[in-house]
Amino acid sequence: MQSQRDAKFKEIAEQLGYRFDGEIKIGGNYVSLVKHEDQIFVSGQIPRVGNDVVIVGRVGEAVGLADAQLAAKICTLRALALLYQSLGSLDKISKILRITVFVQSAHDFTQQSEVSDGASEVLYHVLGEAGQHTRTSVGVYQLPKNASVELDLIAVSDKG
Amino acid sequence: MQSQRDAKFKEIAEQLGYRFDGEIKIGGNYVSLVKHEDQIFVSGQIPRVGNDVVIVGRVGEAVGLADAQLAAKICTLRALALLYQSLGSLDKISKILRITVFVQSAHDFTQQSEVSDGASEVLYHVLGEAGQHTRTSVGVYQLPKNASVELDLIAVSDKG
Amino acid sequence: MQSQRDAKFKEIAEQLGYRFDGEIKIGGNYVSLVKHEDQIFVSGQIPRVGNDVVIVGRVGEAVGLADAQLAAKICTLRALALLYQSLGSLDKISKILRITVFVQSAHDFTQQSEVSDGASEVLYHVLGEAGQHTRTSVGVYQLPKNASVELDLIAVSDKG
Repeated sequence: MQSQRDAKFKEIAEQLGYRFDGEIKIGGNYVSLVKHEDQIFVSGQIPRVGNDVVIVGRVGEAVGLADAQLAAKICTLRALALLYQSLGSLDKISKILRITVFVQSAHDFTQQSEVSDGASEVLYHVLGEAGQHTRTSVGVYQLPKNASVELDLIAVSDKG
Repeated sequence: MQSQRDAKFKEIAEQLGYRFDGEIKIGGNYVSLVKHEDQIFVSGQIPRVGNDVVIVGRVGEAVGLADAQLAAKICTLRALALLYQSLGSLDKISKILRITVFVQSAHDFTQQSEVSDGASEVLYHVLGEAGQHTRTSVGVYQLPKNASVELDLIAVSDKG
Repeated sequence: MQSQRDAKFKEIAEQLGYRFDGEIKIGGNYVSLVKHEDQIFVSGQIPRVGNDVVIVGRVGEAVGLADAQLAAKICTLRALALLYQSLGSLDKISKILRITVFVQSAHDFTQQSEVSDGASEVLYHVLGEAGQHTRTSVGVYQLPKNASVELDLIAVSDKG
């Protein structure tokens, strides 16, 4: 039987048109995920679906708040997909210690926290109380591949 | 009897006109503080006093170095206030592992480290050797609510 | 007998003209390195050789990709030099949990990941599989002392 968290994850992924099966490669000089004891570090994720970065450009100019929030959601789903691949089920996550959200911002765009709300919403929706996290949101000047948002996180898994 | 650290914290808070009692809410989709074993992650803090962000604008343009350092001090006090609330006393902090300081910078403003000195000074003043930390200072393009500075940190508490 | 990792580190440092002996001071209100159990946090490093920041300016304008990658390599060597000083040998590193790479970017420069490849290459070259890490690359507006790149990291050392 599929766990409730895994079902919620797949449901929201489907709603956003995000297919995660097999699309994330791990390996090379750097990796998407490193575990140390019960802490799991996840590399910075951009709003990529398959091979395409689907939300690009500067938030507050080319990209509106709603699309930026969607970008934050997709980044979060990618992080969850990596955790799902690695742990076998999201039920094994006991905490999210930190997310850092980098928003490619216009000169006068100051709603970085509102962008991050997209990420926080997904984490809480899928993981419940275990998904409550600390958060840092900043407005940067550029991001890899012109992505509108980048997000990294640190999770904790159940022991044993 | 009040501990020396707690007294120093309250003294410097008073000097800066920063009242911390009851002003910081914890809760929602994300939280201000997450503990995991003896590590404590604190969310990104901006120079807020009560409901107002008191130092806003781009450092090197609208905001001078001294005010930016003051902003960094207030961010640090907010982080300490959260730790104080959570632990009951700052005497329970054994280490500060990392602070990351994001400075909303002018195009040619390169004194981000000097801004961070404000934060480092407060940590060392209040916590002594336990307040020595690693530090990363960067100049970003914007910050939530047009804050001049944002700071997050990871602390360690005494076991038991 | 010198370990293979230490030899590789010194070799690459020499190739890049980077002398690390005694040049890195630890101390003050903040420090270059904090250990907690087996985790080691390293402060943000800029491409400094001796007293000079050797690669300055905005990547995509004043600074090309190859020089930015070189800057990322030097930042990484500085972090390794700190670990070497602290541990006595790089053989004692068992993991690199995270590097965060901040690139002082032009308005339209989107190759931050390619800049970070310089850092990842050094870590993998020197540390092998233990050097595989998670990574977050962002494009910031300015950096301390006009540095082109800044990098921080978290390492894990062998116990005992």
